[in-house]
Amino acid sequence: MEYKFSDNLASLKPSAIREIFKSLSDPSIISFAAGNPSPLSFPAEDLAAISADIFEKSASTALQYGITEGYPPLRRAVTERLRDKFKIGRDFDTTIITSGGNQGLELACRVLCNPGDVVLCENPSFIGALNAFRAVGAKTVGIPLREDGIDPADLEAALQKHPNTKMIYLIPTFQNPAGTTTSAEKRAAIYEIAKKHSVMILEDNPYGDLRFAGEDILPIKALDDAGIVIYCSSFSKILSSGMRVGFVCAPDPIVQKMAVGKQCEDVHTNQFFQMLCHRFMTERDMDAHIEKIRALYREKCNLMLSCLNQYMPKEVHYTRPEGGLFIWCTLPDGVDMNAFVKKAIEKKVAVVPGTAFNCDTEAPSQSFRLNYSTPSDEDIKAGIRIIGELAAEMIG
Amino acid sequence: MEYKFSDNLASLKPSAIREIFKSLSDPSIISFAAGNPSPLSFPAEDLAAISADIFEKSASTALQYGITEGYPPLRRAVTERLRDKFKIGRDFDTTIITSGGNQGLELACRVLCNPGDVVLCENPSFIGALNAFRAVGAKTVGIPLREDGIDPADLEAALQKHPNTKMIYLIPTFQNPAGTTTSAEKRAAIYEIAKKHSVMILEDNPYGDLRFAGEDILPIKALDDAGIVIYCSSFSKILSSGMRVGFVCAPDPIVQKMAVGKQCEDVHTNQFFQMLCHRFMTERDMDAHIEKIRALYREKCNLMLSCLNQYMPKEVHYTRPEGGLFIWCTLPDGVDMNAFVKKAIEKKVAVVPGTAFNCDTEAPSQSFRLNYSTPSDEDIKAGIRIIGELAAEMIG
Repeated sequence: MEYKFSDNLASLKPSAIREIFKSLSDPSIISFAAGNPSPLSFPAEDLAAISADIFEKSASTALQYGITEGYPPLRRAVTERLRDKFKIGRDFDTTIITSGGNQGLELACRVLCNPGDVVLCENPSFIGALNAFRAVGAKTVGIPLREDGIDPADLEAALQKHPNTKMIYLIPTFQNPAGTTTSAEKRAAIYEIAKKHSVMILEDNPYGDLRFAGEDILPIKALDDAGIVIYCSSFSKILSSGMRVGFVCAPDPIVQKMAVGKQCEDVHTNQFFQMLCHRFMTERDMDAHIEKIRALYREKCNLMLSCLNQYMPKEVHYTRPEGGLFIWCTLPDGVDMNAFVKKAIEKKVAVVPGTAFNCDTEAPSQSFRLNYSTPSDEDIKAGIRIIGELAAEMIG
Repeated sequence: MEYKFSDNLASLKPSAIREIFKSLSDPSIISFAAGNPSPLSFPAEDLAAISADIFEKSASTALQYGITEGYPPLRRAVTERLRDKFKIGRDFDTTIITSGGNQGLELACRVLCNPGDVVLCENPSFIGALNAFRAVGAKTVGIPLREDGIDPADLEAALQKHPNTKMIYLIPTFQNPAGTTTSAEKRAAIYEIAKKHSVMILEDNPYGDLRFAGEDILPIKALDDAGIVIYCSSFSKILSSGMRVGFVCAPDPIVQKMAVGKQCEDVHTNQFFQMLCHRFMTERDMDAHIEKIRALYREKCNLMLSCLNQYMPKEVHYTRPEGGLFIWCTLPDGVDMNAFVKKAIEKKVAVVPGTAFNCDTEAPSQSFRLNYSTPSDEDIKAGIRIIGELAAEMIG
C-alpha cells in the first residue's frame, strides 16, 4: 500500500543529527555530536533512595493517572524556584509540567500557529524546536545570531517583513548550538519590540542553571509585565534527561490551552518521576548538586577550549561559552564544511554539521557544533587534535 | 493581552470528564466517572524491586536520553508478545513505544490527516481520541455502535458519503465507553471494506488483556495482510497508567513517520519506565499478573451488574461487558439524561454523560458511562442503589 502523509509531516525528515547518531554505534568513534548531559550529572543515588520511598509510601498515587497540568506539589515547587532563582512569574502566570522541555516548545507553537504562520528564530537554532514548529506547519525564519544575541534592528526588520509572525523563539542563555548568551541590553530591546508588535516570545532556557563563568543575566521572562513571554525549561540537564520532565511558565490562558493540547498528546507526564523531582527539589540540596555539574562542565569546556587553542588553525573561529553544553566552530570561507564533517567521521570523530541548525533547510553553513559534556577528557584531547589537524590540512 | 489561538485548538474545550473530575475533589462523592484502573492492578512490589536493581546496575542508561522509537529490548519484547498473544505483526510491521496509548492515536492522526479530513469513529467513542483527532483539525464522523460493533453496511455508506476519509478509528474489544465487543464476523467484514477503499484502520486495544468472560476474538490487525491497520495499545491497564508507556504496531513507513512526529513532541518515552516494563515482561510472570486483574474486574463487574439488576428500573438498558472497565447505561426516551447526571451529582454519585463521547459534539444522548474498576464494593452497592432510585423517580 502507498501511504500518503499529512502535509505538515510529509516533508519533515528525521534530523541530520539522528543520521549521525547511526554512525555512532561504532564504539571506536569519538563523539562530539551528542546533546546529552554527562551521566555524572544525574544524582542517581539520591534518586534511588527517594524512589524506594515512593514505592513504599505512595505507590498507588505514583503509578496511577495524574492531572494533565502536572503533579500539584511539583508545580508549586517549580513556581517557587523560578521566582526565587530567576525572578520569573507574575500574578497572571501559571506553571504546567511537560514531558521534557521540547514538548513545551511544541505545544506553544501548536496553540498559537496555523500552517503558514511565521516563527522568527535565531539562526542557527535548536533543531528539535525548528522541527516541532515545522510539524505544525509553521514557517521558521532566521535572524542572524551574533556573539551577544540577535540584533534588535534585525528583529524589527523581520517583523516588518513578516506581518504573520506569531512567535519569536529564542534561547538567550548558552544557546544551542552556538553557546552564546544574549546581553541584558539586547534582551530588554527585544522584549520592547515584541511588546510593540504584540508578538509572543517563546523563551527556551534548558541550560540556565549551567553557568560556570561570567555573571548571571535574568531571563527575558523576568521583564514580562505584559504577559507575552512563554518560558520553557526542564530538569533534563540537572536531574535526568531520560525521565522527560520539563515545565512551562506562561500566562494562564496560554497554559490552559497548552493543557488541552497536552491532553491530546500524552494526557500527562510520568507521574512517578514528577513525584521524584518534587521530592529531590524539596528534600535534597538542589543548589549544591547544580554547583557540582557547573564545576564539571567548567573543567570540560576549558579543556576543550585549550585543545582548540592548541590544535585548531587560527583561521577557525570558535565561541567561548560561559555555560551550557556546546562550542560552535566556524571554518574559513573556501573550506567545504560538509566535506570536513565527512572526513572527520572517516577519522573517527563525529561533529554536527551547522546546516542541521539552519532555519532555512536549504541554506549552506561554514560551522559545526562540538559537545563537551559527554566525551571523556582523553577523547576531548585526542578528538580535537584530529579535527584540528584535519582543518589545517583542508585550509592548506 | 488578547491571545489568539490556532484554528485547530481554539475551539477545543477541556473534556466534560475533566469538569466532572473537578467535583470529585469532594471525598464524599461516589465516583463511577473515572477511567482509571484499580490501584490493585499495579504490581508495585515487583516494580519496586526491579527499580532498585535498575538504579544499582543501569542508572546511567535509565536516566539518559533514549531513542525516539523506544528502548530496543522493550520493542522486541512487545513485538514478541503481540505475535504470541494476539497473532499480530508481519514482515512489513514494526513497533514503536509511545508515551501512553493516547500518543499513538494522536500520532497516527497527525501523520495521516490534514485539516478537514474525516476520521470515521464508532459513536459513541473514546473522548481522548476524538479530541486528539480534532486537535489535528480532522473531522470526527460517527457510525452507530451496535452491541456487536458497527454495521459493515453503515461503514460502507459512510465511506461513500465521505470520500476524504483518511482513517477508521475502532475500539473493537471492550469498547470505551460502551463496553461492547465487535464480533469476529464484523471485524472481517470491516477489514475488507477498508481494504477495498484503501483507508487505514486505527485499532485501539487498551483493554484487550482484560477479558473476564466469553471467548477471545483476535484483533483486526491479525487479519492485516495489506498493511492498512495501525494497532495501538499500552501498559496502562496492566502495569501502571501513571507511567505513560504505550506502543504501536504498524507498517514500517507509518512507524517511521510517527517517530518523526514523536521526536517533535517528547523526543522519546520515559527511559527508566521502558526498562522497567521490559524487565517486568521478561523476568516476571506477566500472564499470572494479568489473570489476577481479570479476576478482580470479573468480580467488580458482576457486582455492579447485579446491583443494576436489583435497583435499576427495567426501562433502563445497560451493556453486559465481557472485559474492560465500563458499563454503558441508556435511559428511556423522555428522561432528560443531563438532568439525571446533574441530580446524581447532587446525590453524591458521579457518572459521565454520554454526550462527552459523541462524535458530533452538538448531538444529544440518552446514555451515561459507569466505571467499575475503581470504586469499592461498598460504593458500588450504595451508588448504584442511589442512581437506580433516581432513575425510577425520573421515569415516574
